[in-house]
Amino acid sequence: MIFAKDDKLVMIGDSITDTGRLKPIGEGKNDALGNGYVSVVNAMLHTFYPQLGIRVVNMGISGNTTRNLVERWQTDVIDLKPDWLSIMIGINDVWRQYDRPTIREAHVYLDEYRSNLDGLVKQTLPLVKGIILMTPYYIEPNKEDAMRRSMDQYGEAVREIAEKYGTRFVDTQKCFDSLLEHMYPATLAWDRVHPNLTGHMALARGFLDAVGFSWK
Amino acid sequence: MIFAKDDKLVMIGDSITDTGRLKPIGEGKNDALGNGYVSVVNAMLHTFYPQLGIRVVNMGISGNTTRNLVERWQTDVIDLKPDWLSIMIGINDVWRQYDRPTIREAHVYLDEYRSNLDGLVKQTLPLVKGIILMTPYYIEPNKEDAMRRSMDQYGEAVREIAEKYGTRFVDTQKCFDSLLEHMYPATLAWDRVHPNLTGHMALARGFLDAVGFSWK
Amino acid sequence: MIFAKDDKLVMIGDSITDTGRLKPIGEGKNDALGNGYVSVVNAMLHTFYPQLGIRVVNMGISGNTTRNLVERWQTDVIDLKPDWLSIMIGINDVWRQYDRPTIREAHVYLDEYRSNLDGLVKQTLPLVKGIILMTPYYIEPNKEDAMRRSMDQYGEAVREIAEKYGTRFVDTQKCFDSLLEHMYPATLAWDRVHPNLTGHMALARGFLDAVGFSWK
Amino acid sequence: MIFAKDDKLVMIGDSITDTGRLKPIGEGKNDALGNGYVSVVNAMLHTFYPQLGIRVVNMGISGNTTRNLVERWQTDVIDLKPDWLSIMIGINDVWRQYDRPTIREAHVYLDEYRSNLDGLVKQTLPLVKGIILMTPYYIEPNKEDAMRRSMDQYGEAVREIAEKYGTRFVDTQKCFDSLLEHMYPATLAWDRVHPNLTGHMALARGFLDAVGFSWK
Amino acid sequence: MIFAKDDKLVMIGDSITDTGRLKPIGEGKNDALGNGYVSVVNAMLHTFYPQLGIRVVNMGISGNTTRNLVERWQTDVIDLKPDWLSIMIGINDVWRQYDRPTIREAHVYLDEYRSNLDGLVKQTLPLVKGIILMTPYYIEPNKEDAMRRSMDQYGEAVREIAEKYGTRFVDTQKCFDSLLEHMYPATLAWDRVHPNLTGHMALARGFLDAVGFSWK
Amino acid sequence: MIFAKDDKLVMIGDSITDTGRLKPIGEGKNDALGNGYVSVVNAMLHTFYPQLGIRVVNMGISGNTTRNLVERWQTDVIDLKPDWLSIMIGINDVWRQYDRPTIREAHVYLDEYRSNLDGLVKQTLPLVKGIILMTPYYIEPNKEDAMRRSMDQYGEAVREIAEKYGTRFVDTQKCFDSLLEHMYPATLAWDRVHPNLTGHMALARGFLDAVGFSWK
Amino acid sequence: MIFAKDDKLVMIGDSITDTGRLKPIGEGKNDALGNGYVSVVNAMLHTFYPQLGIRVVNMGISGNTTRNLVERWQTDVIDLKPDWLSIMIGINDVWRQYDRPTIREAHVYLDEYRSNLDGLVKQTLPLVKGIILMTPYYIEPNKEDAMRRSMDQYGEAVREIAEKYGTRFVDTQKCFDSLLEHMYPATLAWDRVHPNLTGHMALARGFLDAVGFSWK
Amino acid sequence: MIFAKDDKLVMIGDSITDTGRLKPIGEGKNDALGNGYVSVVNAMLHTFYPQLGIRVVNMGISGNTTRNLVERWQTDVIDLKPDWLSIMIGINDVWRQYDRPTIREAHVYLDEYRSNLDGLVKQTLPLVKGIILMTPYYIEPNKEDAMRRSMDQYGEAVREIAEKYGTRFVDTQKCFDSLLEHMYPATLAWDRVHPNLTGHMALARGFLDAVGFSWK
Repeated sequence: MIFAKDDKLVMIGDSITDTGRLKPIGEGKNDALGNGYVSVVNAMLHTFYPQLGIRVVNMGISGNTTRNLVERWQTDVIDLKPDWLSIMIGINDVWRQYDRPTIREAHVYLDEYRSNLDGLVKQTLPLVKGIILMTPYYIEPNKEDAMRRSMDQYGEAVREIAEKYGTRFVDTQKCFDSLLEHMYPATLAWDRVHPNLTGHMALARGFLDAVGFSWK
Repeated sequence: MIFAKDDKLVMIGDSITDTGRLKPIGEGKNDALGNGYVSVVNAMLHTFYPQLGIRVVNMGISGNTTRNLVERWQTDVIDLKPDWLSIMIGINDVWRQYDRPTIREAHVYLDEYRSNLDGLVKQTLPLVKGIILMTPYYIEPNKEDAMRRSMDQYGEAVREIAEKYGTRFVDTQKCFDSLLEHMYPATLAWDRVHPNLTGHMALARGFLDAVGFSWK
Repeated sequence: MIFAKDDKLVMIGDSITDTGRLKPIGEGKNDALGNGYVSVVNAMLHTFYPQLGIRVVNMGISGNTTRNLVERWQTDVIDLKPDWLSIMIGINDVWRQYDRPTIREAHVYLDEYRSNLDGLVKQTLPLVKGIILMTPYYIEPNKEDAMRRSMDQYGEAVREIAEKYGTRFVDTQKCFDSLLEHMYPATLAWDRVHPNLTGHMALARGFLDAVGFSWK
Repeated sequence: MIFAKDDKLVMIGDSITDTGRLKPIGEGKNDALGNGYVSVVNAMLHTFYPQLGIRVVNMGISGNTTRNLVERWQTDVIDLKPDWLSIMIGINDVWRQYDRPTIREAHVYLDEYRSNLDGLVKQTLPLVKGIILMTPYYIEPNKEDAMRRSMDQYGEAVREIAEKYGTRFVDTQKCFDSLLEHMYPATLAWDRVHPNLTGHMALARGFLDAVGFSWK
Repeated sequence: MIFAKDDKLVMIGDSITDTGRLKPIGEGKNDALGNGYVSVVNAMLHTFYPQLGIRVVNMGISGNTTRNLVERWQTDVIDLKPDWLSIMIGINDVWRQYDRPTIREAHVYLDEYRSNLDGLVKQTLPLVKGIILMTPYYIEPNKEDAMRRSMDQYGEAVREIAEKYGTRFVDTQKCFDSLLEHMYPATLAWDRVHPNLTGHMALARGFLDAVGFSWK
Repeated sequence: MIFAKDDKLVMIGDSITDTGRLKPIGEGKNDALGNGYVSVVNAMLHTFYPQLGIRVVNMGISGNTTRNLVERWQTDVIDLKPDWLSIMIGINDVWRQYDRPTIREAHVYLDEYRSNLDGLVKQTLPLVKGIILMTPYYIEPNKEDAMRRSMDQYGEAVREIAEKYGTRFVDTQKCFDSLLEHMYPATLAWDRVHPNLTGHMALARGFLDAVGFSWK
Repeated sequence: MIFAKDDKLVMIGDSITDTGRLKPIGEGKNDALGNGYVSVVNAMLHTFYPQLGIRVVNMGISGNTTRNLVERWQTDVIDLKPDWLSIMIGINDVWRQYDRPTIREAHVYLDEYRSNLDGLVKQTLPLVKGIILMTPYYIEPNKEDAMRRSMDQYGEAVREIAEKYGTRFVDTQKCFDSLLEHMYPATLAWDRVHPNLTGHMALARGFLDAVGFSWK
Repeated sequence: MIFAKDDKLVMIGDSITDTGRLKPIGEGKNDALGNGYVSVVNAMLHTFYPQLGIRVVNMGISGNTTRNLVERWQTDVIDLKPDWLSIMIGINDVWRQYDRPTIREAHVYLDEYRSNLDGLVKQTLPLVKGIILMTPYYIEPNKEDAMRRSMDQYGEAVREIAEKYGTRFVDTQKCFDSLLEHMYPATLAWDRVHPNLTGHMALARGFLDAVGFSWK
């Protein structure tokens, strides 16, 4: 596995990452990591690699788009001096275009999204041991659905940035797609976005596979 | 319009009808009719036909299937002696098959659904001036979606029963389909089932058109 | 209908407009438009004109008089760059004279009312496609009632300003008067001011008729 | 004054009497008498006649009509063995006809009202030292208002019963009418029914004058 | 009675005056006057002198001593431009010496009390039509009780100041003493300080007698 | 000390004993013993005699008089099979005569009090190792105060019963009287009945001295 | 893995199993499985074996000992007709001996524990495809600690019963012991009993290994 | 005993001292001293030495380490001008090393702890009559437990500082150790840190013995 003893892993993103974490810093108290994939990743790392003492910090904030990450990057990522950084962002960049179509100033279109994310990765890569880029996703099996189509484009942009900078990469859409072959979306998420623990486990599995975790 | 002075209209169904109505009888106090299509219908009838003094009673209960209606039909419909009766039921009969697939005893399959609804209409028609049958719906534009496909079958069963007994009929799926040509589902309903006021307005419009309402 | 695709309509006023809307800007989240005539207007526009994608913003604040509108006009109207603007104000300008007669500094008498409203309209008309002026009202059928008499004078002032500047005009008092021929005030509003949904539907009807809405 | 040392006075009625009193018996704990005319009467009696130790019990229940009084008369009046009894009932008998006109089974028309009240007085008079009958009222100065007109008829029925049985009598409508010469209804009651403390003081004054109270 | 049409009466003091009044200014909304002697006085004035339209403002704050009054006098009295002013202060000046004897810096001894109160009266008398000085009190019949003895000294200081400046004067201790001849303290106040409505009625009676009120 | 290893001590009484204990049985969970003298006694016994493992059970109920104890004696004392029993009752037997003088059926006069308590002791003494009788008290230094005088009579009755049956005895009034030589009642109890922790410590001290406790 | 398509797995136990599950049956609604090892097991099974559609039901109840299981076994296990059953019980059988030593009737000593558990397994084995027995545990690394020593004896009893009946077996104490080589107990559980998600993950891992789960 | 009439004793520390005390200054109101050893000490001093009128002030804050004390020493100790000062600090200095091992910046290691505490004592001793130093503790009987071992080192540092400056000294660990000979830790504290009242009584006993208290 890629993490070494005492490494500090900061995980940033939107409500999927946030999941009720402690503010302003998501660590220290009970439930400080929220109740989603971050807390699952943390639990798996400590259960299977107790000798490493890895420090996981949750910095997700509900409703965030890449614009919000740009604004709070210095205080919420750089200042925390992470060894590793995971980023899962983009669902709200897309979603606002579909659930609040009239509020156009809240939409983050593909070019801006790509540019925002590229800038964050570029700026941060020299400061950390490595970055894990996670795509946004939509728990919708119909690839012709308008919002799914957009989400796939944003996910593709993440893949390109990951390749450009050689970071680790998690295709979260694929994690869900393999479940959706056997399950209807409503068994995973009320709104096709915020998953129950099964969905968060799928995200954690994708992340853990990307960092070389093995179930011994 | 089909309603006459002092007519009493009972509207029964599931959470779409319930919308927080007063229990056990949905009338009398402020907000007793909930905040969905029932209260919109009531408001439209009183605003445009104030001289009729129509009495609207909401008897919806969240989570109900046709099985629940059968159980509570005597006390919740017959005993109230309605002049008119509207029924919108079936979403949960279908939904449980998709959001809780392992809990099979909670599923109401098509044959039982058709039989339950047919029995209620047959039993009640002689006691009232008329019945308005409303289909269940799913705010999903993709007709190949598995749950949408099921919902369309249940809706078709309602249409057949309406024709068999000659009742008024509202194709609520069609109300939403025409909106979905211009709107993404997420602008109407968080979970593609429980609509915001725009969606309830579409249901009210379908109902009002079926009873001969006119905007003077 | 007067609204065009993507038009933005800001609706400002007092508690009748506010009805629990989101603060500071009444749009975006569920129930952001409150639960009164504004949300009904919004729902009707989206249900009957889904292709237009009209953006409705609720800027009402409970207890406001014209004095308050003057104070917050720049941030709450001008800065939002509306295409259309509706104003319904004056109930509190009058009411305070009748429910708190000893607190004279809270009364806004007719001359100041007329001057305040005239100034707002004059200043804003060049910046928008159009303004819809709505009178204040009192759900009291007795035209000799002291507060009703005052309210009628304030309503008359609105009519004069509407004519002076050629704006759209809604005589909300007339909307209620036609209902009061068939209903006692207590069926519409606990305090003859804050109506239930039937009363808000009457306000919405008045507004929609004034903007050329048609029930197709 | 008519009360003697250690007399027990039971005061029964609707929400105007109830005003949040302790249930099931309105006495004993702090605030057990509610915060309306009953607690004012009690305070005045103890302040001005401390030597008498009069025991005041509040048995009002919100929403009650004469029908409810008939049902609970044995347990809520007879069983308490009062020396004196005051009754103020009728507002809801009338009000339901005006605020919920479609729910006809909740209306108590004049004949039934008169008959109910007459029966209660007749049955109870032999068991007590005396009864104080208080009319219902409506804080509406316009005697041509439909609900005011009805209320005046019910008040007249109380006067006739008081005269028939020779009980003490309080014309509460008159108490308010004299205030309404100087005040607009909104300064006394939000809904022209439930008064603030000034209105309750007017009721208490009417009661106290009827029982021979004097401000020494 | 000493009050004239449209007079404004500000009543200031400690928790006995405060009784849950609206902050920062105790007037305007329902229950803005709290639920003690201030609201009783207000109700009596409006019920018996409705033609005067007297404006009562409650500026009491729980826990206050004369020190606190000195600090907030400009904003809470002078700036409000009262026609008449009532002051009832001193209970906490004394009480802190008895319930928190070790916290000596919270005690206001007699000399400071007299000096504080004298300064307030002297400064304000030229600005108003008149002042009503009310003594502090203790609902303890035993005049040899240590705290009662202190309270009597503070009350005596109020009397002296009232005589020095010729203000109206209410001996509230006497109001309670006459009740205590017939009642045990526990029937009036849980802690011998904060009375129930009977006790507040006794205070109101003392005040009203001092301003020439008559029960007509 | 009189308690032996594994002894079970049940302590019964009114609100002074109750102090928020767990219901229906006051033991087992945290704070199950309330926060008064019972929990102090328990803590002192376990801190100073940890080797004894004494089991303390709190069965006090707020508002109780001897009448209530008689009613619940079988289930709340006998069925619990205590080795030792403490009883502190009587404050409410007296207090109701002073704080609710008009509600005479709630008063327990001295003869009934003595008879009730005597019966309980007589019935229980053969079933236990011993009983500790604690007097009621009143935190009022003035022995001429009416309620204090009554309380002293009830306390005297407890002493007589203790002597008659040879039980242990705690004169709680004396515990407070020695404090009142140095403290004003308000520093011990808001209402001269419910003490703060200092007062409960005085009660615990009286109890502990009576059972042979020593601070080693 | 041992589970087949559509198998139903009931998991019963105490608070470690309960973790806030839905009552009376822990399935169906969101969070119905609580937030402990049961929900982790469920999520892992659905994420890694989505094609199986396994139905997990949580029947844990906080505070339960084997005595409670015996009482509710028919309704809470047999009647649910599980294919598989897991049992983790015994922590409270032991704990009550250490945290409430004086309440001896709440202790379940080793013989009764063994007998209770043996009876449940014997009775149920013929009705199910298989049982997974999980030991109780104590997150205390010191094997000489009194409560740890007891817990190890109870765990040994579970092992013997598992061997006797040939059921699957999870040594949960061992799961924690391997973590405790690297972590202090306080990082896993506030009270050395109720673990955070890391501890629940260790329990889930033990369970999953016992049923043949593999991370593909 | 060492305290003289009117002496002021400030007690500072972490959550064991805080126990829900009033903020910002822990005195004056009911329960201002929290519900731990501070309130027990206060109650014992007032019950047994009522003539001294000792003033106890609780300045504990939950979660504090010596670092926090250094930061708030001027305002929270020096400015209060105590006659006597007790300090019990260090549990969190140690605990964070064991319950949050990855958050290294929150650990206060032994050298810093000793230096912080030494500085506080040195700076304050000239300003007060005397200081009572209390060790931190851990309710863990196993002296080989890692955290217990650390805590003993920190306790030893307190002893050395007490000897260096000649202050009073309380070995709180010893208070608990003598109880742990007869009790399992779980009967005293859920988490081996925050004791129930029995544990706080043991702390109070240690303190009182150190200041010369005697049970008369």
